[in-house]
Amino acid sequence: MAMDADLVTAGVLVIGDEILSGRTKDKNVGFIADYLTQLGIDLKEVRIVADDTDAIVEAVNAMRACWTYLFTTGGIGPTHDDITADSVATAFGVRIDHDPRAVDILTRHYQAGELNEARMRMARVPFGADLIENKVSSAPGFRLENVHVMAGVPSVMQAMMDAIAPTLRTNSALLSETIDTGVGEGLVAEPLRIAQERHPEVVMGSYPYLRDGLFATKLVLRSREQDKLKAACEDIETMLADLKGQRQAQI
Amino acid sequence: MAMDADLVTAGVLVIGDEILSGRTKDKNVGFIADYLTQLGIDLKEVRIVADDTDAIVEAVNAMRACWTYLFTTGGIGPTHDDITADSVATAFGVRIDHDPRAVDILTRHYQAGELNEARMRMARVPFGADLIENKVSSAPGFRLENVHVMAGVPSVMQAMMDAIAPTLRTNSALLSETIDTGVGEGLVAEPLRIAQERHPEVVMGSYPYLRDGLFATKLVLRSREQDKLKAACEDIETMLADLKGQRQAQI
Repeated sequence: MAMDADLVTAGVLVIGDEILSGRTKDKNVGFIADYLTQLGIDLKEVRIVADDTDAIVEAVNAMRACWTYLFTTGGIGPTHDDITADSVATAFGVRIDHDPRAVDILTRHYQAGELNEARMRMARVPFGADLIENKVSSAPGFRLENVHVMAGVPSVMQAMMDAIAPTLRTNSALLSETIDTGVGEGLVAEPLRIAQERHPEVVMGSYPYLRDGLFATKLVLRSREQDKLKAACEDIETMLADLKGQRQAQI
Repeated sequence: MAMDADLVTAGVLVIGDEILSGRTKDKNVGFIADYLTQLGIDLKEVRIVADDTDAIVEAVNAMRACWTYLFTTGGIGPTHDDITADSVATAFGVRIDHDPRAVDILTRHYQAGELNEARMRMARVPFGADLIENKVSSAPGFRLENVHVMAGVPSVMQAMMDAIAPTLRTNSALLSETIDTGVGEGLVAEPLRIAQERHPEVVMGSYPYLRDGLFATKLVLRSREQDKLKAACEDIETMLADLKGQRQAQI
């Protein structure tokens, strides 16, 4: 994809059979999407894959090459089906072993006798990675180059995002205006097309929704420049007012 | 990925900037995941991409080659940012134009004078595709080979899934049992690992969740064979009972 080289972008990779089977409804994508938008990072792609080494390795390597940052969620717990850390090590072609810093964190967290072999799996970290703090349940995530590996439990993932956020490069804030047109997409399409041609530097989207059984449309305009955003909004609102006038004249 | 050649699999491609910006929270993935699981089709991968021709073409071609079926949602409305139909035509290398069957449906649905140029965009269908009925708002989706192109508005997408379902090939039903262990993943990991080794034909997953501030774990076992599923469940329950006995003996 043609892309502004300076634009900070992101991909999200959700790992877990339970999302694909429908048993668990993912809440992490929506949270991360909001979070990145507020930080000023453009989320460009999400993938959800199974607990399958080949699927994870392929997705990690495809996505880390495309975007400034990749964030993964899921598959870093103590059980045999948690294979994210090993798969990320395979994707990067680096060794993985019990990390002394992670072992230290788990040793301090668990009572004597509680830190069994399964829980020690959570200290397996690819060689060369930094740890990501987990204020909720201690077992850390990790960052390897531009890939941030986080837990799947939403409260833990959210704590990890808070730990990561100060380290991320961001774009200047993307400003956004929403216009609720009150009419169907078919009526606003032509004014919107004209406005998009007149204001190419403002990104315009149209989002249909059902209200009282009828389709209505919200328009969302986005730009990094306040004056350009304002001019485009005013232009559209003028056209919508004209449209309304024409429709009333017909009655 | 190594895959049973007879297994019926699916991918889902969600198309829309509004999901990636966080403005709209996707509800279609969870619905389709449940729907396919109930039908007996294994959902293997989900991607969410922007309203960008290159991104859509790349994802459609990658996913339709991997899975038995690909289902897309979003980007088939009347506005300039709805580019899914054209992108799918590009992905297949086929022509796209106003489809007489789709024009007929729209002509019957709209009052005289309402069917403007923008709405006519919704009749653009790639050459060689079959239409998918839309009982909610008439504008059809379409199927081209193994790719099913559906609307993004959930009620419309759901009506289209109902129209598609009878045409799909399915696996024999996947049976599932859930065991709520009441203890953290770290304690159930070893019995689960042993059970997985003993019952390789049963797929076992472990899903941690927070209850009253403590981590607990649900185990989900899946198989297409009732007797194998039952044997694996009994084996795990015996090991969990032994574990509970040991912990009580320690007190």
